[in-house]
Amino acid sequence: SNLPVPLEPEKNAPRISQVMRFGFPSLSNIRSYGDFVLSYDTRNRSAHWVFEHLTFESVAYTAEVDRSKSDFYDDQTVHPFFRALNSDYKGSGFDRGHLAAAGNHKKCQQDMNETFVLSNIAPQVGKGFNRDKWNDLERYIRNQIKNYKNIYVCTGPLFLPQKEGDGKLYVKYQVIGTNHVAVPTHFYKVCVYENVKNELELEAFVMPNQPISDKIPVENFRVPPETVERASGLLFFDRLSRSKLKKINGKKI
Amino acid sequence: SNLPVPLEPEKNAPRISQVMRFGFPSLSNIRSYGDFVLSYDTRNRSAHWVFEHLTFESVAYTAEVDRSKSDFYDDQTVHPFFRALNSDYKGSGFDRGHLAAAGNHKKCQQDMNETFVLSNIAPQVGKGFNRDKWNDLERYIRNQIKNYKNIYVCTGPLFLPQKEGDGKLYVKYQVIGTNHVAVPTHFYKVCVYENVKNELELEAFVMPNQPISDKIPVENFRVPPETVERASGLLFFDRLSRSKLKKINGKKI
Ligand SMILES: [Mg+2]
Ligand SMILES: [Mg+2]
Repeated sequence: SNLPVPLEPEKNAPRISQVMRFGFPSLSNIRSYGDFVLSYDTRNRSAHWVFEHLTFESVAYTAEVDRSKSDFYDDQTVHPFFRALNSDYKGSGFDRGHLAAAGNHKKCQQDMNETFVLSNIAPQVGKGFNRDKWNDLERYIRNQIKNYKNIYVCTGPLFLPQKEGDGKLYVKYQVIGTNHVAVPTHFYKVCVYENVKNELELEAFVMPNQPISDKIPVENFRVPPETVERASGLLFFDRLSRSKLKKINGKKI
Repeated sequence: SNLPVPLEPEKNAPRISQVMRFGFPSLSNIRSYGDFVLSYDTRNRSAHWVFEHLTFESVAYTAEVDRSKSDFYDDQTVHPFFRALNSDYKGSGFDRGHLAAAGNHKKCQQDMNETFVLSNIAPQVGKGFNRDKWNDLERYIRNQIKNYKNIYVCTGPLFLPQKEGDGKLYVKYQVIGTNHVAVPTHFYKVCVYENVKNELELEAFVMPNQPISDKIPVENFRVPPETVERASGLLFFDRLSRSKLKKINGKKI
């Protein structure tokens, strides 16, 4: 396809129209929060995807906003059969990992608090992943706001197959708690950056949900966006023709 | 909830309104065929659920209709990234198992043919399952049309966790072919029956995707409907209050 690039919504447009400017990856169980949008996966008790829109203003830090004032809370809008609870995570050994990063929403306490809804959370390995390399990736993307006026970030879980001894491919993942919250094997982020000249670039990352050495740069986890699309069953930025992109994963196309 | 029972649509109402009389289990990627309706799972390359409505007329056999005239075909309405192909099944050792049973759609060749779309198919163990006990279940439900004027059947795959040696629960399933079609660990059917007195009953079944002894009666595979709902992430017959049912799994309630 060769559609025109969707226009930047006006500053006073509804936040959801800004966040979702380049299209919805899917349409199941959409929840729109103050500063992010997600699609809930009733089977895995977490999000299919979470979309954020970062600008210089949106990632700005307000002194009073403090993540220690935020508590993880269960999503009352989700049917109890499909709702993750704090008790599911307790004693599991996994962190409650943010999909929309808390650090991207320091403008007001309400936005920060909303990132702690368990629909925006998935079980992540703490040491070496959530607290380390995945956090590096979050900061890497947020820091790009020095170079771009708009950043659109889509984040979610993956359940990737592995070849076993019998030569066949198997998907295998743990589920935790009485509500069987699925522990993803991997996580992805797919980002579109727009600079002041309205030029667009895309970056896609997949990281395994396991301890990752500090020494590996985040760029090493880049993958073609199609890889994430096939694995997740989602199409990212489908209102934006890939032919309109100046770069994918840092390479001119 | 205690909603009134949705009225039976008139005979000339659109088929989808008859099939889906008691509500959609979910709303992702709906496809409506001549005699069944499904929701496609782009990640697992098969259906989340398939809904059928059986009546004495709809299951009637027309002499010219012959399943040997039907061929399995890939679903061109599904994005190629997410589309199952015949080549994915080839050499996998699994049958292309119908979700909406071919045997329920012998009224016209077109209806029969449509059940062979790969979106209505999932990998099933052949001997002892697809060709045997699962087929028994399909016939068991179809034969109920002697006792009821309307039968509503929802069928789909499950991916159930098992406890491993470390005491933790894991979901594990094979994926086949270049498109990684997921092999379900189990399959479910949830049915609502309506008799001539407009009395309603529900039956729910879960069978493991493995050879099952001929000697076990299908009734042994009954489970509470909530079990299927929690496992699948779907709500079945949600426009029909459970309090309106005369029986669940053969027991008065
Ligand atoms: Mg985190
Ligand atoms: Mg069959």
